[in-house]
Amino acid sequence: MTETPALFRDCGPAEPARSIVLGKDTPLMLDSGVELGCFRLAYQTYGTLNADRSNAVLVCHALTGDHFVAEKHPVTGKPGWWNLMVGPGKPIDTDRFFVICSNVIGGCLGSEGPKEINPATGQPWGLSFPVITIADMVRAQKMLVEHLGIRQLFCVIGGSMGGMQVLQWAVSYPEMVYCCLPIATAARHSAQNIAFHEVGRQAIMADPEWRGGDYLNQNTRPTKGLAVARMAAHITYLSEPALHRKFGRNLQNRAAITFGFDADFQVESYLRHQGISFVERFDANSYLYITRAMDYFDLAADHGGVLANAFRVKGADGVERPTPVRFCLISFSSDWLFPTSESRAVVHALNAVAANVSFVEVETDKGHDAFLLDEPEFYQVARGFIEGNAQRRGLTSTAKGA
Amino acid sequence: MTETPALFRDCGPAEPARSIVLGKDTPLMLDSGVELGCFRLAYQTYGTLNADRSNAVLVCHALTGDHFVAEKHPVTGKPGWWNLMVGPGKPIDTDRFFVICSNVIGGCLGSEGPKEINPATGQPWGLSFPVITIADMVRAQKMLVEHLGIRQLFCVIGGSMGGMQVLQWAVSYPEMVYCCLPIATAARHSAQNIAFHEVGRQAIMADPEWRGGDYLNQNTRPTKGLAVARMAAHITYLSEPALHRKFGRNLQNRAAITFGFDADFQVESYLRHQGISFVERFDANSYLYITRAMDYFDLAADHGGVLANAFRVKGADGVERPTPVRFCLISFSSDWLFPTSESRAVVHALNAVAANVSFVEVETDKGHDAFLLDEPEFYQVARGFIEGNAQRRGLTSTAKGA
Repeated sequence: MTETPALFRDCGPAEPARSIVLGKDTPLMLDSGVELGCFRLAYQTYGTLNADRSNAVLVCHALTGDHFVAEKHPVTGKPGWWNLMVGPGKPIDTDRFFVICSNVIGGCLGSEGPKEINPATGQPWGLSFPVITIADMVRAQKMLVEHLGIRQLFCVIGGSMGGMQVLQWAVSYPEMVYCCLPIATAARHSAQNIAFHEVGRQAIMADPEWRGGDYLNQNTRPTKGLAVARMAAHITYLSEPALHRKFGRNLQNRAAITFGFDADFQVESYLRHQGISFVERFDANSYLYITRAMDYFDLAADHGGVLANAFRVKGADGVERPTPVRFCLISFSSDWLFPTSESRAVVHALNAVAANVSFVEVETDKGHDAFLLDEPEFYQVARGFIEGNAQRRGLTSTAKGA
Repeated sequence: MTETPALFRDCGPAEPARSIVLGKDTPLMLDSGVELGCFRLAYQTYGTLNADRSNAVLVCHALTGDHFVAEKHPVTGKPGWWNLMVGPGKPIDTDRFFVICSNVIGGCLGSEGPKEINPATGQPWGLSFPVITIADMVRAQKMLVEHLGIRQLFCVIGGSMGGMQVLQWAVSYPEMVYCCLPIATAARHSAQNIAFHEVGRQAIMADPEWRGGDYLNQNTRPTKGLAVARMAAHITYLSEPALHRKFGRNLQNRAAITFGFDADFQVESYLRHQGISFVERFDANSYLYITRAMDYFDLAADHGGVLANAFRVKGADGVERPTPVRFCLISFSSDWLFPTSESRAVVHALNAVAANVSFVEVETDKGHDAFLLDEPEFYQVARGFIEGNAQRRGLTSTAKGA
C-alpha cells in the first residue's frame, strides 16, 4: 500500500468530493484548437487502489450526471446515481476496486465549465468557455488518471454519453484500458438525437433570462427554458410502454378532466416535476455545451469514416492489430434514443477487426434510462463481464489481498 | 342541379374560402358544459353537390392543418396540404365528389377560437375561450353539414387529429356517415403523446410574450415559445430512418463543425426553419387548445372503457347492432406517434362487434407525416376503398351524371 499516493489513500464513500487543478505544466489541447491551461476537475473515488494500481475502474457519467456515483448528492440529497452498479458487493465492488468518477469538463458540478470563473477575467466563463467534445472530456480524464499514478485502468464503464466516453477511451488510449463496458450508447449521434438536442438548446436560448449566455453576470437564470429542455429530453429517456404502464391516461388527484391547462394527467405533472427539479441542480450553459459535445461525437469520422478502423492499433513494429481492449456492449430493447442497432454497429466494427467483444441486448420496457434502473439482467451481465476480466487480470477477490 | 342550394352552387377550387356563423338558433353544446351561440366556422368546398346530395366527402384536418385542402394557402402561398388526395382525378375526385373541409373550432384560420374576437367583450377570446374537445369539433362540423342540406356524408376522411374526428363522427353520428377512413390515428391519446404536447404547451407558456394568454390584447406574440413547441412536435412527425436518410450528420453549408451553437448540422437548420415558418401561420393559444383537445380524446371513456361498445348502435327496435359505417383504417409502419398498434386496437374493437372494416399498414420510412406525403400505396388503398364504396352507394363516375 505504500505506493499509493497519500492524496487518495484510504478514500471511502463518506469522504467529500475532491477537485484538482490540472494542465498547469501541459495544457489540455482541445479539439477546437483551444489550449486550456489550469483547468479544474471535480472527482470522487471509492474503494482503495491496490499496490500495483491495477484495480482502478473509471466510471463515465451521462449528460446530466456527475461524480456522485454512489453517495448522497450534495444538491438534491438523493442517493448516488449508480448505487445499483457501484458499492460494496455491487457489480463494481468497492471492496475490490478503486472507482474514479470525474465531473466532465464543461460540466457544472465543480469541473471547469461555463459556470466557473474564468481566471483571466474574474467573471464566469459563460459562452466564452471553449466548446468541448467527448474526446476533450476523455483527455481531461486521462490527465486525472495519470495524476493518480495509474498506468492502465482495469475497466472503463458508462451509459449513454458515458458510453461515448468509454468508446473514446478505448480508441484514444487502448493501452490504458484493460476492458470496457459501453452501455446504451452509439459511435455517433444520430440526426434525430441532434434534433432533440437542438430543441432543448433553442428552448434555453429562447428564454430572455438566458441573456445571450451571460445570465450569471446579470444575476438571473433561464430556469423556464432549461425546464422545457429537460422535459423534452426526459420523454426520450423513457419508452412509450413504460409511460403507459406508469401513467397511462390517469388523472392527477382529480376525478375528471378540468377543461383547462393545468396538469390534469399524471404524466403532465410528472414531466413538470422533472423540469422544475432539474433546474435546481443544473446550469443552462452547461446543458448547451454537453449536448453539443454529444452532437459532435462521431468516432468513425477521424478514421476515414470507417468505424472498424478506429479499433485497429498500430504496434511498434508498424503492424496493425485489433485493439487489445476487451469490450462488452449492452443495449436495452426499448431504448429508442440509443437503439440496439447503434450498439450492433459498434459490435460489427469490432468483429470486423477480430477484437474481443461480447454483446447483450437486455429485454426491458424501461427505455434508455434502464441503465440507471433496477434491471437485474443488466447488472448480472455487467457483473459477469467484470468478474471474468478481473480473474483474467489476476485481481483477487479483495483489493486488500492484492 | 336545381336542388343545390345557391350558397354553394358552382363552387370551385378557385373560389375564396367561406365562413358561416352557426349556432344562432341552437347553441353548440360543448363537452365542458359551455354553450356556444353564434360561432363562426371557416370552410372550403371543392366540386359540386349532386342532386340527391349523396356525394359529399368531409375532410378533417390535423393539429396545424386548415380548410385549404387543395388550393394555395392564403398565408404561406404553398399548395393545399392534401393536394395528393383531393382534386380532379385524385382519390377524392373533385369531378365526382363534393368535398367539404372546415377549420376546426378552436383553430386560428377563421373559425371561432382564442384568436377571434369575443362578441361579448369586443376583445380577443384568448384563454377565456372555452376548452374544446374532438367531439366538440365534430358537433360544429355536423351543424355545417346540416346547414349545407346534407343528411348523410358519403365519406369522412382524415389523418392524425383528423382521424380522431373521423372516428368521433362514426361514433357520434353513425347514420350520417356512409364510409370513413381514419388514417394514422388512435382511439385515445397515449401518455407519451400527452407528454410531447405538454412540452409544447410549457414552451409557449414559458415565453414571457405569451402574457398569460393575453398577448393579442398586449400587441405581442410568443413566437419563440411557439417555435420551440413546433420543433419538438416536428421531430415526432418524422422517423429516425427518414431523418437519417434526409440529413444524416450532414453539415449545413460548411466544411467542418464550427465549435459553436450555430446550426452546424442540416437537421438543426431544417428544424429551426420549421419553427420560424410555423409561427407565421399559427396562433399560440390555438396550439394550446387543439393539443388539449387531442389529449382529452378517449373514445372508449364514454362507453364504459370498452372501445367496442362505441361501435354498437341501438336501433329503433331497441336491438344493438354493429355500426353501419364502413371503415378503412390505414397506418404507417414507421409512425411512432400513432403507431400501427393504435390502429389495430380500433380494428379489433370493430371486429368485436362484427362491423365492416378493412385495414392496411403501409410500409414506409416516412413516419407519421406519411399521410401528407407522396406514398403511392397509401393513395392506392384510399382510392380503392372510396371507389368500391362509391359503386356500392350508386355514385356513378361523375357528379354531373347523377
